[in-house]
Amino acid sequence: MQVKRPTLLVDEKKVRKNIDKMVCYANSQKVQLRPHFKTHQSSDIAEWYREAGVTKITVSSVSMAQYFQNDWNDITIAFPYNILESEEVDALAKRVRLNVLIESQTSLDHLQKHTSASLGYFLKIDVGTHRTGIDPNQLDLIQKLIESGNDNVHFKGLLAHAGHSYRARSKEEILKIHKMAKEDLLSVGERLGTKLFVSYGDTPSCSVSSSLEGIDEIRPGNFAFYDVMQANIGSCSLQDVAVAMACPVVAIHEGRQEAVVYGGGVHFSKDSIQNNSGSPFYGEVVHFSNDGWEHKGDAVLSRISQEHGIVKGTEEMISQLRIGDILGVLPIHSCMSADLMPGYFTFDGKPLNKAPKIL
Amino acid sequence: MQVKRPTLLVDEKKVRKNIDKMVCYANSQKVQLRPHFKTHQSSDIAEWYREAGVTKITVSSVSMAQYFQNDWNDITIAFPYNILESEEVDALAKRVRLNVLIESQTSLDHLQKHTSASLGYFLKIDVGTHRTGIDPNQLDLIQKLIESGNDNVHFKGLLAHAGHSYRARSKEEILKIHKMAKEDLLSVGERLGTKLFVSYGDTPSCSVSSSLEGIDEIRPGNFAFYDVMQANIGSCSLQDVAVAMACPVVAIHEGRQEAVVYGGGVHFSKDSIQNNSGSPFYGEVVHFSNDGWEHKGDAVLSRISQEHGIVKGTEEMISQLRIGDILGVLPIHSCMSADLMPGYFTFDGKPLNKAPKIL
Repeated sequence: MQVKRPTLLVDEKKVRKNIDKMVCYANSQKVQLRPHFKTHQSSDIAEWYREAGVTKITVSSVSMAQYFQNDWNDITIAFPYNILESEEVDALAKRVRLNVLIESQTSLDHLQKHTSASLGYFLKIDVGTHRTGIDPNQLDLIQKLIESGNDNVHFKGLLAHAGHSYRARSKEEILKIHKMAKEDLLSVGERLGTKLFVSYGDTPSCSVSSSLEGIDEIRPGNFAFYDVMQANIGSCSLQDVAVAMACPVVAIHEGRQEAVVYGGGVHFSKDSIQNNSGSPFYGEVVHFSNDGWEHKGDAVLSRISQEHGIVKGTEEMISQLRIGDILGVLPIHSCMSADLMPGYFTFDGKPLNKAPKIL
Repeated sequence: MQVKRPTLLVDEKKVRKNIDKMVCYANSQKVQLRPHFKTHQSSDIAEWYREAGVTKITVSSVSMAQYFQNDWNDITIAFPYNILESEEVDALAKRVRLNVLIESQTSLDHLQKHTSASLGYFLKIDVGTHRTGIDPNQLDLIQKLIESGNDNVHFKGLLAHAGHSYRARSKEEILKIHKMAKEDLLSVGERLGTKLFVSYGDTPSCSVSSSLEGIDEIRPGNFAFYDVMQANIGSCSLQDVAVAMACPVVAIHEGRQEAVVYGGGVHFSKDSIQNNSGSPFYGEVVHFSNDGWEHKGDAVLSRISQEHGIVKGTEEMISQLRIGDILGVLPIHSCMSADLMPGYFTFDGKPLNKAPKIL
């Protein structure tokens, strides 16, 4: 397709392969797969999951649940219940099977008071990320919150996200974090003397762990696209990354082996990774062919401002560039890049829609 | 107004005051003011500039010029001319007085070949940022590009952006960078033995410098909103920051003096500043009153993920918080936060529109 300005291209084959692999893994482990849709936020891409057998989804906001409610009838909002959106939550619960996240009596009381439709709640457990959630040792609180459920607002299980796995730098580190997080999570039911339904997340763990014993449901999201960060962590290889930003070359500075592309912070966000010498970089450059791209390791996105991206390459790579060429850039964090773009295109120019941002 | 989810509130009085001060400064220095509209991207806020006497604007993309072309008829696209958007540039030039940026013969030749309407071009000069632009010592190239102008595609002057002023950490450093950048820029005309029109940018320099001698036009953008970064650099005080993200409190963790707000990377982007102990933070927390906010210095946004923000506060501040409260957060980089939001609201609930992202 013809690209004129920064455009996020989706390699449909790679996305479908990434989805199929995760479906296969979930089946082999006998766990339910409830993929997180915050990564793509696209009702078009969502259909690729359905074709792979997915029937339940996770989202990260009430707005995102509203966007998907026409096509998906089993949705978990994996974000602490926001009491200011109780009307919207109630309206959603009337239309779909809805689950929300609870971690305090205040929030649960509010939910029960303001909900007329039936919905489920998960207790969010903090398995070491210390972002939010209940400490697994607060057994009294957990027990009380479980018992507070009623027919209308019913307890579903425990839910955790081992977000600290993103700080890992190898498969071994991921597996170590996964093991500890899983043990923390499963210990709650053991100590309460009951089998609780357990929902578990994060792409790194779900990508590399060989055992999900004791877990009933997984909610990875990023795996559909992957990105340079995930390759760096060890969740995937760069070949698995399924999105690339197509960026026009607008200036070339051979003297310092740099080119300027149209593509900056408003397209990539500002996530970065440090290279071996401690300098940050913002994406890996790839070269497009007719139906894909190739990562030659000859250039990176070394700096970005609002619309400008600075590509630093080898002498040979920069010398062959021409103004008006299109370079591809694999994003450091595909969820953030995808969120910033108004939609996507496949290689054959098919537009893929995306949830609009709501004022 | 009632806030339910992350909402960017604009303090209209502060924005108007920031605009008035810059207009006043430009007048006192006898330079033209061509403010950069990439910061707000709003045709509503744009009218506040018009009321302050502004008639010419700067934008950072062809799309943004298209958005503003109905209301503004003198527009500079301060981004290297993208030959792939030549049709769009030509269409714009037919409707408004348009200027584009050139830094190579290749781009200028393309522009002249593909433009039927009259438009101006500035030569982008690199005054030390080394992002893009022509080295001021490349006098032969500059001379040749100046002489390549014709009646249709005419040379307007030199343009520079001292973006490295953003790396300053005091007024003194800003002034030092400004002095060197200005000297580099003005030396071009002196050495070519001719007076060239000179357009100069960046909020830090335009906020603190007391002399713009030799400069004909300034293009600051961020000053309308300012942000924590600008206060940190020394361009403004925190009291001048005119936008705050209103974020609902969804969880409280008193034990570690933290609260979780609905407001994360998809609202703030990932720009950060290091605090005194070397840890990054993502915004300064403020407390809303009826018609404004107060910065008490009692909390910061210490971590963010996609939708979550972690507020770290004093023991007293966290102990007084309740789930469902609204906290304000002054962004580190207001241009990026503003770009992420679909629009703004004033304190009295008036919505302010924004340029849509174009697929």
